[in-house]
Amino acid sequence: MTPQISKLQEGNVKFQGMIETVRDKKNIQFIVLRDFSGKIQVTVDKIAYPEVGEVFSHLLTGATVMVEGELVKSEYVKMGGQEVLAKRVEVTSTAEAYPIGPESSIDQRIDYRWLDLRQEKNLLLFKVQTVFINALREYLLNNEFTEIHSPKLIATASESGSEVFQVKYFDTFAYLAQSPQFYKQMAMAGGLGKIFEVGPVFRAEKSHSRKHATEFTSFDVEVSGIESYEDIMKLEEELLAYALEVVNKKYGEEIKQVFGVDIVVPKLPFPRIKLADLYNELEKRYGYSCPEEEKDDLSTEAEKLCGQFSKDAFDSEFLFVTDFGAKKRAFYHLRKDCVPQGYDLIWKGVEITTGAQREHRYEILKKQAEEIGLAKDVEFYLQFFKYGCLPHGGFGLGVDRVTMNLLDIPNLKETMFIFRGPERLTP
Amino acid sequence: MTPQISKLQEGNVKFQGMIETVRDKKNIQFIVLRDFSGKIQVTVDKIAYPEVGEVFSHLLTGATVMVEGELVKSEYVKMGGQEVLAKRVEVTSTAEAYPIGPESSIDQRIDYRWLDLRQEKNLLLFKVQTVFINALREYLLNNEFTEIHSPKLIATASESGSEVFQVKYFDTFAYLAQSPQFYKQMAMAGGLGKIFEVGPVFRAEKSHSRKHATEFTSFDVEVSGIESYEDIMKLEEELLAYALEVVNKKYGEEIKQVFGVDIVVPKLPFPRIKLADLYNELEKRYGYSCPEEEKDDLSTEAEKLCGQFSKDAFDSEFLFVTDFGAKKRAFYHLRKDCVPQGYDLIWKGVEITTGAQREHRYEILKKQAEEIGLAKDVEFYLQFFKYGCLPHGGFGLGVDRVTMNLLDIPNLKETMFIFRGPERLTP
Repeated sequence: MTPQISKLQEGNVKFQGMIETVRDKKNIQFIVLRDFSGKIQVTVDKIAYPEVGEVFSHLLTGATVMVEGELVKSEYVKMGGQEVLAKRVEVTSTAEAYPIGPESSIDQRIDYRWLDLRQEKNLLLFKVQTVFINALREYLLNNEFTEIHSPKLIATASESGSEVFQVKYFDTFAYLAQSPQFYKQMAMAGGLGKIFEVGPVFRAEKSHSRKHATEFTSFDVEVSGIESYEDIMKLEEELLAYALEVVNKKYGEEIKQVFGVDIVVPKLPFPRIKLADLYNELEKRYGYSCPEEEKDDLSTEAEKLCGQFSKDAFDSEFLFVTDFGAKKRAFYHLRKDCVPQGYDLIWKGVEITTGAQREHRYEILKKQAEEIGLAKDVEFYLQFFKYGCLPHGGFGLGVDRVTMNLLDIPNLKETMFIFRGPERLTP
Repeated sequence: MTPQISKLQEGNVKFQGMIETVRDKKNIQFIVLRDFSGKIQVTVDKIAYPEVGEVFSHLLTGATVMVEGELVKSEYVKMGGQEVLAKRVEVTSTAEAYPIGPESSIDQRIDYRWLDLRQEKNLLLFKVQTVFINALREYLLNNEFTEIHSPKLIATASESGSEVFQVKYFDTFAYLAQSPQFYKQMAMAGGLGKIFEVGPVFRAEKSHSRKHATEFTSFDVEVSGIESYEDIMKLEEELLAYALEVVNKKYGEEIKQVFGVDIVVPKLPFPRIKLADLYNELEKRYGYSCPEEEKDDLSTEAEKLCGQFSKDAFDSEFLFVTDFGAKKRAFYHLRKDCVPQGYDLIWKGVEITTGAQREHRYEILKKQAEEIGLAKDVEFYLQFFKYGCLPHGGFGLGVDRVTMNLLDIPNLKETMFIFRGPERLTP
């Protein structure tokens, strides 16, 4: 394996890279080569190495080469103050002219996502996402969580009634899981205690919003032995604060430079507010008045205002909103005096999580499912609770949505490796 | 959140657990409570706390409780030399009698997987799998790998011709990805340099072997800037050695106790042998003679014998086998003098990986696809290579199969959180 560009040392070098630019002068060539780790200038003395010059003069952006030469310090070179004086070059692949550029529309760029990914900001985006998600994992693993991989092929259509994809499964049909919710809870019934899963979820929604996809990556957490959903909020805020600290340390400056975003490591605890109190505050502060009949849920407008409100009232990017109306929350949320014991977490005016304590008692869970006519559909799930189950709760984060928020990117299509939507199955 | 059982300290305690056993004597009760972290004995003085005794005497295995009391050292208690003298108990969930036990068949146990998971060996299995997989991730992340999440919904049916699941996708059809292979390579074309993915793959095979599932978790790695597939073998052996060391350190003794397996941290490098030489050796040493027409691939019998052979010849559990016949390897493997530049990795006589350098040059790749009549089907994939691509290679590991090997478990159904097969879509 040849060394990556960022690790090249002074002296003789042999390395590989992709051509970014070739500037071809009469007696000299300046080539910028790159790989995932960085860029370097390669300089060719066409008098001394005419065959090397000949090769480079025919290569387009994207072509790849193996170069041998000498790496020297050079105060004239802006790019890291160094250059490689090339002595030998071998073409490892050629390239056609690019059909897209950074100025192309997002949909055109996705048509050629493998070229679009070459943009430096995209490489950075996925590095940041990797570090962020792994910091979440690391925090959980350090706290004795077990990782599960729950099935995506399931026998019954639905948890939530929203649309699911149907799969031809030999002589019958299966469905693609919309979330690992039921299986996370199965792990709780199974005694795994504290678990997480990072995996795809599937939503057959014909939405064309900038925040929806038919397939995306979900980061799901579930914990037994809690005393209330306060324990879940505490876990989630600590988890996010840890991950943001890691990201800030590793990529804070680069993110500021490339995306113009300051990563703020949040103070703990995050502020908490009941939905009714939030509506009072939004009216008092910003004159926003929500129709009475919608006050059991967070309206789109109110969600946005939360960004401003949490800044103004608490100097925080984050805000936990609690005490939603029972009809607006999933049937499996545990209720106390009819109030679902859960929350939404709002980050910069965007809901990133729904979390809750779950109803773990078979009879009550069954009753709550019956109330909305779901008992038959979720019969298999209800079984998990017949043989005892510790009180538990959890939450889920959309990896791609959180990345949007982290880097202030307005469109989900930009933060997914490859976007999937109602009209988008390729590349 | 109440403290987990393994972290309870002497003195007053309040904690939660699931009932394992209740031994009810005249004046005293001994209860074993457990959670994911361990077990503890709870002792109830029925004279002093009759209401506590009354509660426990009605609870079946699986019921869950919150207990308050005093934890004291006690030389009479085998379980950790301590017990909790209970003063208060609150039932958090009740349980029906279990319909299965450890002695039930694997299929019966899977019907009630959430109960089957409660077996201590299953809890350990998933803890070990978590640590193993995370050690693999950790090694890669420490080496600047980026994590990707490639789409599982894809537009075209196949890479390999083997059977795929069809999904009704709005007004058209999609298919479930059999592997992230093409998308790993797209990341290479996209300049991500070094990537990995851990996610589900789907195989519509009507196989009932003890090693097959219709959905399982794949750990996939792909790296740019290689000089040959030797670089991939080197990466994989270092990765596995690292992960096995981590597992051995954390769970070596427990694994020995529960599964009777010695975790062997392998020496590097793993032995390597060409397929033709392997057949010569197997004939010479064990009298195994493979039919001439099958010698371009590793026969099932030869695969098994590799376990013995690598032990005898190299004192190694691992063996790289190289130089397979071109017709037996995927069309996208790079060939040198007609020999596919890849390998199988055999661990304890079981193939756990196919790895290779990939063909990264558009024209040659296209030709290799045409040779087997696939050029049309993989047209979208061929496009990735039109605009240049660094030489690259990689491999994939089945998480559940590797766990089988790690713990010497004969059936894949035991190592998957929830098994999926042709006749198995539940729970």
